[in-house]
Order: sequence, then structure tokens, then C-alpha cells
Amino acid sequence: MQIPTPYLIFLGNAPDDLAAKTGQGIVDWRPEHCLGQLRLAHCRADLGIPDCTLAEAATAGARTLVIGTVSPGGDLPGEWLPVLKEALDLGMNVASGMHVALRSFDVLVEAAASQATQLFDLRHSDAAYPTGNGLPRSGRRLLTVGTDCGVGKKYTALALHRAMRAAGFNADFRATGQTGILISGSGIPIDAIVADFVSGATEALTPANQPDHWDVIEGQGSLFHPSFAGVSLGLLHGSQPDAYVVCHEPTRTTLRNVSAPVPSIDEVIEATTSLGRLTNPKIQCVGISANTQALGTSEAAEYLRELRERYRRPACDPMRDGVGDMLEQIKRDY
Amino acid sequence: MQIPTPYLIFLGNAPDDLAAKTGQGIVDWRPEHCLGQLRLAHCRADLGIPDCTLAEAATAGARTLVIGTVSPGGDLPGEWLPVLKEALDLGMNVASGMHVALRSFDVLVEAAASQATQLFDLRHSDAAYPTGNGLPRSGRRLLTVGTDCGVGKKYTALALHRAMRAAGFNADFRATGQTGILISGSGIPIDAIVADFVSGATEALTPANQPDHWDVIEGQGSLFHPSFAGVSLGLLHGSQPDAYVVCHEPTRTTLRNVSAPVPSIDEVIEATTSLGRLTNPKIQCVGISANTQALGTSEAAEYLRELRERYRRPACDPMRDGVGDMLEQIKRDY
Repeated sequence: MQIPTPYLIFLGNAPDDLAAKTGQGIVDWRPEHCLGQLRLAHCRADLGIPDCTLAEAATAGARTLVIGTVSPGGDLPGEWLPVLKEALDLGMNVASGMHVALRSFDVLVEAAASQATQLFDLRHSDAAYPTGNGLPRSGRRLLTVGTDCGVGKKYTALALHRAMRAAGFNADFRATGQTGILISGSGIPIDAIVADFVSGATEALTPANQPDHWDVIEGQGSLFHPSFAGVSLGLLHGSQPDAYVVCHEPTRTTLRNVSAPVPSIDEVIEATTSLGRLTNPKIQCVGISANTQALGTSEAAEYLRELRERYRRPACDPMRDGVGDMLEQIKRDY
Repeated sequence: MQIPTPYLIFLGNAPDDLAAKTGQGIVDWRPEHCLGQLRLAHCRADLGIPDCTLAEAATAGARTLVIGTVSPGGDLPGEWLPVLKEALDLGMNVASGMHVALRSFDVLVEAAASQATQLFDLRHSDAAYPTGNGLPRSGRRLLTVGTDCGVGKKYTALALHRAMRAAGFNADFRATGQTGILISGSGIPIDAIVADFVSGATEALTPANQPDHWDVIEGQGSLFHPSFAGVSLGLLHGSQPDAYVVCHEPTRTTLRNVSAPVPSIDEVIEATTSLGRLTNPKIQCVGISANTQALGTSEAAEYLRELRERYRRPACDPMRDGVGDMLEQIKRDY
């Protein structure tokens, strides 16, 4: 799957910037792919890129209209249908990470067929993957793992990938979730795969490569999250990472959407190394990435200093100070 | 999902008894549900139950024709279609654990619709489940886990369930795979569920119950199998078992279909207890079930004796000597 760029980002009537998180992620990481935004009359989100109509976007060469907002209840609002149909009629593809499939709407399927444009339903995978085989592959791999969901695994992987490329590394970002796929234009929505094929799909996403090539893989869930630990383990085994980074949010006390406590960073390191050895005996933790958004500047600096001391590994907040220390560690170790 | 009984077991042209494993499993555990077998001209398998035609089975009250064989390559042989259609026309449902869906054949969908009979595609789950929440539920649960796939998890769970019922326990067998579902008439094909919902589906399969009620849950895969460990972990977390039994095949050296070594029983106990604590802090191993089919009688007895001594827990081969010791252990502990 490869989603053609540039994008027109559709925000519908998103009530605030948080509802436009997907669109914001794309603008943050791939501004060069974002031709503009399309907002309906009551939209209160703003990605800070030019507003344009469907016709203007098509004329300017937009290849795909990307739904960059979440809709209330996960449904596709009826008023979006004419917009999406017009985009298809104008020759654009449409991409969506929503639970409801674009292809469940006949009007969209017909419009896409008549223009030979594509519907990308990122939460619905039709591709058939083999089951994982666990065999060693050439090339190097780095996986971001987390103490919880939503602690910065995607952003950490993207920041590491950007820094590695800037430093001359031969590296690819490998997306495993809807937003990551929209950012990078390709990937596999790992949590939409039938359970038996998660590790096999991950092996397909991160195939054998040149010995010095790095796959920087977006992690999902947490080995300690009762909803998603199985997905995290399949992803860990399929990734067979040489290196991993633990992502953490220091002010959170219970796991997202459940009542279980957030595990310690130590527990995550111990479990990841121990379980990851099954498919890569040399797996090691190369750093800790903390999302310190909730802390003040000096508090965050002090917290990161404590992490460095305690774990004797690089610790950083990629959004505050970049990932330079982690990159140095990777250069030293590999 | 509840598959109506009694069954007519369809074996097609199964070349040998091994190809009729699914049918054999049903006959072994639920002979009272098996009205007869239907074999095509070149079938070389025999379940030891009466042969009957479709018309005879229908007259005798068969409610569901069950495909009890695997087909070469997983496809549905063309010559089966008229047989399945006739069964539907005669008012029987049709159940299949094959990868190819019955409902992908228009002729079957139409025949089922015209008779108001059902197509049961056991590898294809349409049901929507929530993500797991990990909250404690009332009632007790026992899960069978394995050092590998195909080491007797289903048979051990069935044997324990039968022994518990015979001893007056309030217990249900909970099927998580195709054959288990056909044996018990209901269940959830856990490996056909989208990865994000494995633990949630397991919670739905083993809901809150009376405090003395036991769910005896069929395990899947192994925490040490690189293809399926994620499924095993989702099932472990969703089951939140109080007790588990480790299933093992002593002569196997590499895991099924991959080249990784079989883990030790110690490793499986350590990982299962450690990971299982996330949703049930009181999880414990109540026994070891060895499939000693490949050993002679005295060799098997000696091996089981060694297991008992080494692990200080009951160890048995359910197919040789039953599960009496394990049941005594459960009575003592709960």
C-alpha cells in the first residue's frame, strides 16, 4: 500500500484541534506532503496550512484527500459523503483511518471506480500475510515500546528516523498504525490484522535488508496493557529488534482506558528484553523517551537527568531536546 | 454462536485418518452428538460411526452437516458443493472450520436462505467485541497453555472439564478454536479475531459467573512460539485464569512449523505466571499434562514420575491415566 501525495487534509467540522490530531500529525512530520486543508462551515480546528476548496486542490495537484479528524462516535457523518464523492470525481483518492469503511458506501465505491481512483481504508486490511517464522533477517531494526498507549511511540520513532537520516543513516520509518501510515504514505495497520498473522505481517513490513539498513518501527500498545499486550508481543516478535526505546509519560498513574496501574520502566525493560530474545537474542534497550509535556522546563530537565542516572542510558524528550544522545548511543553500539 | 446438534460428519475423500482429525475429535469427545458419517467414494478415513446418506441423516434428525476433514491446500473441492447444497436443501445447517468461507459460494448462500438454515464459518468471525478491560470477574477460570502448538491443550481442557463435571463441579468448557467449537457447539475462534480484540473476545467468552463456577478454557499457541505468542498472551490476559496447566510433548525438539527450539516447562511456568499476574495476581500452575503418545508404557510412567518430582505438582497424560491427580490438586487449592 502506497498512498499518493500531496494530500488535501479534510477536517470536516472538527470542534477543536485535538479532534484534528491525525491531520496535525501529518503536518508536523510531513509538511511537504500537505497541500492544504479543507474545513466545513463549523470547523474550529486549524492546522495552520492554506485553506483550499476541492477544485483548487485538484488544480494544484492534490492526489489524495485524507480524513484528518475523528468523527463523533466513529461514524462517517452524512454530510461528508458529497465532499468525498466530489474529491473522487475530481480524480483524487480518499484515505481514512476511521472504523467505518469508505468502501461500505456504494456511492464512494462507484465514484472511485468511474475515475479509477482508490479508497484507502487504513483500519481494514485485506492483504493476506503468512504466519510469522521467527527466522533471523539481515539488516537492523529498532522498535519503540511503551509503558502505556499514547505515550509517544510514534513520535519517538519518527524523530529517531529523521535524526538518523540527517546523520546519513540508511533508514526507513515503518508505520504500524493509521496516523503513521498517513504520515509515511505506507505501512501495515497492525491492530487491524487477524490475530494469527500479526507477527507475520510485521515480518513482511520489515523484510531482510542491507546489513547497515535500519527499520525504525512504530510500536503499538504495551506489554502491560490488558487490552493490547498480545498485539505488542506479536509486533515485538515479528520486528525482532536489535534495539528498542522505552516510551513513558511520567505523570500518568493508570493505563489508558483501563484501571490497571502504569508499569515501571524497569518492568518494561525486563519484559521486553526477556520476551524479545525469542526472535533476537541480542535485543537491547538503547534509551528512554519521556513525554514531559505535563512538566515545566526545569522539572522536565531534572526528570530526564534522573532517568539517565538511574538507567545509565540516554533519556530524552524528543519534542523538547531531540534524540541526539540516543543517536550517539546507536552509533557507538552498532 | 450455538451449532445445532446432532451432527452428520462429512469426510469427503479424506485420504487417511489423520486428514479426518476434526471429525475424530468430535467423535472422541461428543459421540452422543454424532449421528453418522458421510464419506465420498475414495474416502479412506473411518470414524467408526454409522455411514449414512444425506437423506437418511435428515430423516434421522441431523441438524448440522459438519465438515470433519481438512482439504488439500485448504480449498473447498468443487465436488463438495453439490453435497453441501443438498444438505442445506434437506434442512440441515453446514459448519466448516476451513479457511475458505462457505458464504463465499453464492450457491450455498442461496440454498441456506431458501431453507432458513445457517452457514457456520468457524474461521471467520463477524461478531464485534470490545477491547479487553482487564477487570476482575467473579467465578473461577482454568486455562491450558503449551510449550508449543499441538501438544494437547484442547484434549487436556476437555478431559479436565469432563472430570470436573463427573465430580460435581459447576464447570463449562470454553472453546477457542475450530475443532473445540464443533465439539462443544459454541465458542469463539480466537485466532480469527482482529488482533486488537483478542483479550476482549476472551473476556466475552468467559464472563462473570457464580463464585464456584469454573470455565475450563482451551489454550492456543504458546508464549514461546514466534508465530502465535501474541495470540497466547491476549488469551492469557483475557482469561485471567486462577489456575493453568502446562501441556508438553516430551519428544519434540523444535516448535511446530518453525525452527525455534521448544522451551522448557520451567520457562513456560515462569512466563505464564509472570505475565498472567497482570490480570490475575493469584494465577498458579496446577499441573503438567504430557502427551506421551510417542513413549512406551513404562517409559511414559517414568517420565511422568520425573515431572512430578521435579515440579512438585501433578503430572499426567490425560489420554493414558486421566486427570485425577490434577482434579485433587484443584479441590485442595480452591
